[in-house]
This record gives sequence, structure tokens and C-alpha cells, in this order.
Amino acid sequence: MTDDLKYWNTAILIFDGVEVLDFAGPYEVFSRTRTVPDFESRRSEDSAPSRVFTVAPERREIRATGDLRVMPHFSFADAPAIDLLLVPGGFGTRPLVEDAATIAWIQRVAASAQLTTSVCTGAALLAKAGLLNGKRATTYFGSYDWLTSIDPTITVERGVRFVDDGIVSSAGVSAGIDMAFEVVAKRCGREVAEETARYIKYRWEGGGERRGGRGLAAKA
Amino acid sequence: MTDDLKYWNTAILIFDGVEVLDFAGPYEVFSRTRTVPDFESRRSEDSAPSRVFTVAPERREIRATGDLRVMPHFSFADAPAIDLLLVPGGFGTRPLVEDAATIAWIQRVAASAQLTTSVCTGAALLAKAGLLNGKRATTYFGSYDWLTSIDPTITVERGVRFVDDGIVSSAGVSAGIDMAFEVVAKRCGREVAEETARYIKYRWEGGGERRGGRGLAAKA
Repeated sequence: MTDDLKYWNTAILIFDGVEVLDFAGPYEVFSRTRTVPDFESRRSEDSAPSRVFTVAPERREIRATGDLRVMPHFSFADAPAIDLLLVPGGFGTRPLVEDAATIAWIQRVAASAQLTTSVCTGAALLAKAGLLNGKRATTYFGSYDWLTSIDPTITVERGVRFVDDGIVSSAGVSAGIDMAFEVVAKRCGREVAEETARYIKYRWEGGGERRGGRGLAAKA
Repeated sequence: MTDDLKYWNTAILIFDGVEVLDFAGPYEVFSRTRTVPDFESRRSEDSAPSRVFTVAPERREIRATGDLRVMPHFSFADAPAIDLLLVPGGFGTRPLVEDAATIAWIQRVAASAQLTTSVCTGAALLAKAGLLNGKRATTYFGSYDWLTSIDPTITVERGVRFVDDGIVSSAGVSAGIDMAFEVVAKRCGREVAEETARYIKYRWEGGGERRGGRGLAAKA
């Protein structure tokens, strides 16, 4: 990635049992973001600040929740350099926290990525990888205790939509869309994020700083 | 479909250039809806009121906007009976309005479906199929004129999130999520829709009737 952050590689991890909106929401946001406003700019990648792709443990069709079938662009073995890693959640995270290859891949990618993020129970995978050690984080509201059972040094922020403590973690499912816009705002400016939200008719309410959260933590 | 609407087949049309969130948002809503609340019910289909699947013109991998790769469950040739049809939008609708096979399929399915719906520029496909003739409808805010250029008898409702005039059409991208919840509320009751919205942490603001819209038309 160049220093001016003009173009970055965004990898979205997918796996069997990944929650559809956990990965598809941020995929929509990152892949539709343009630094040039309006409709025409979305027809090409010319003003796209990020290239977005999916990565799965293996290069085979994955089955998301509800059986949506998605073919990953890359596997762990052949993924290109990753600047921004997004780890979504879903029921599939339960077996995946025990998958040594996945945890090792997350550790390896996070070590060189500019930013590592999670949606929903994707935080459990980051916790298992040791990435949330001693940090503040959030996750799906049904999984707060699961997170601290993996790593008791994590300070779980309850009832927020996302937390930025170096690693950016978001709450359940739809909260990943808000987090993605927040990442875009930090990297490309708030105007770009707001224009993209209008483009996809999303009622983005902006970041936590405006809403009295701690740091970037936005209230749910 | 049984008369009490306990279980219905929801088909989501996908095609090259379909907007990711247009189809993935409603897919998430319909496939995660359960008549029994909480987490455990989502682990099985036992209390799912709808079976959700994707249908594409042909049984091959499609490339959504941003190049997300999705494998359809069915093609036009082998799709099962469809009770609820959802036609999403995206840049891919521009060539697709000229595709006779797709328009004929939409006409055929809509003729026997209980409900036909569109998200974003999916309304253009419904218009081309003659399904919006003389009706009120909405679409993506950049495509209001396109809709009436296809069928001048359509009354386009501007600045609303969705319109129910027999055919249910929604505005751009994210508005499809609101429309999906409205359909769930009509079929399964508002409590089921609200519980599902909480489950996926979506800030659903409820239907247009509560918000002073005309009929079910909700303000954007």
C-alpha cells in the first residue's frame, strides 16, 4: 500500500457458516466507495480507494448462513498482500476458533496489515489469535462472555456498535456496515463516506466521536 | 404454499452486475427470520417461515457489483415453485431489461407468486414485464425517469423507502432490508420482524403506516 493510502487491498474472510450480512454489508460499502461522487464513478474502479476481495481457507465454494453459496476470490495459499483485513462472524466461527490454520493465517495477515477489523463473532477469531489481548473490543451481544472466555484480558464494551482500540471490532451483523463506513471516513474523509452512504441509501449516523462514545466507540 | 403462509419459497433473482446489498440484505432478513425467538432457533430451519434461494438465468457463477462471486441455487430452467419473488437492482439491470428470457421468466413467476417485490432498479425489470402498469412504485433515486420511460403509466413515488401497491417496490440498496422486514411483518406479524431485526442488530424503524406514509409507503 502506498503511504498516501490511495489504494488498499481489503480482504474479507469467508467460511462455511459465515453470516451473510456480516461480510456482504462491508463488501458493499468498501467496493462501492469512490473518491469521485455520483453514479458514473461507480461504473469503473478508477476512483475506488480500495480493491475488495474474499479469501477462504480453501479455494472452494463456501456456504454462508441460510445456504448462500459464495466462491472466494482467493484461498489462504494464494491471497495477495492484504492492507485491511475484515473477519466476519456467524455460526461458522464456533468450529473455526479451533482451526489452527485459520488462526495462524489471521495472525500472519494481521502482523503486516495496516488495519484488522471484525464484525460480530469474528472478534472471537481475533481473540483466539491473541490480537485483542489487553484491548477493548466488542462482539455480538449474545457472545460477550464467549469473548472473555477465550481471552480474559479483553475489556468487552457492551451495547456499542463498534470499538476502535487499534483493532476495530463491531457488534452484530448490521453494525459491520457502520464500522465499514467509519473505516472509509478515517481513510478517505467523512465526505467520501457520507456520499457513499447516500449512494447506497444507507442511514449512516456517523462515528462515535460525534455521539459521545469513548474514542470511536459508537453507541448501539 | 399452504394457505396459512406457514412456509413459503422465497426466490431472489441474481445476475451479473446485481448490487451486492440489494440481494444480500433481503437474503439475510428472510433466511434469518424465525417464528421462535433467540439464538438457538437460528441453528435449524424448524421455525423458519421461508425457504430462501437464489435463481439466475443460467446455472453458473454470477459476478455481482464489486466482483463478488455467487453461485445460484437454481436456474430459470430448474427453479422450484416460487411464492415470493424478489428482483434486486444494480448496473446489471441495464442490459437485463432487454433480455427477453429474463423478462418472460419474471412474468411467468409473478403470475403465480403470492407476492412480487423489487429493490432499487429491479423495478425496471418489473416495469418491462408490465407488472407495474398503472401502479404506484418506487426505485433507486437516480432512476425515477428510467422507470417511467419504460412504462409511462407508472406513478413514481419519490423520496420513499418502499411502496406497496400490490407489487412491493423499494428504493435503493439498503431500503431493500427495510422492505424485507415489512414483508416479514405482514406475513408473520410485527413481533417476529422486530425480533429478527434485533437478532441482526438492524435499526429497523418499522412500517410506513406508523410513519404517516400513504398506505405502506415509508418515507426515505
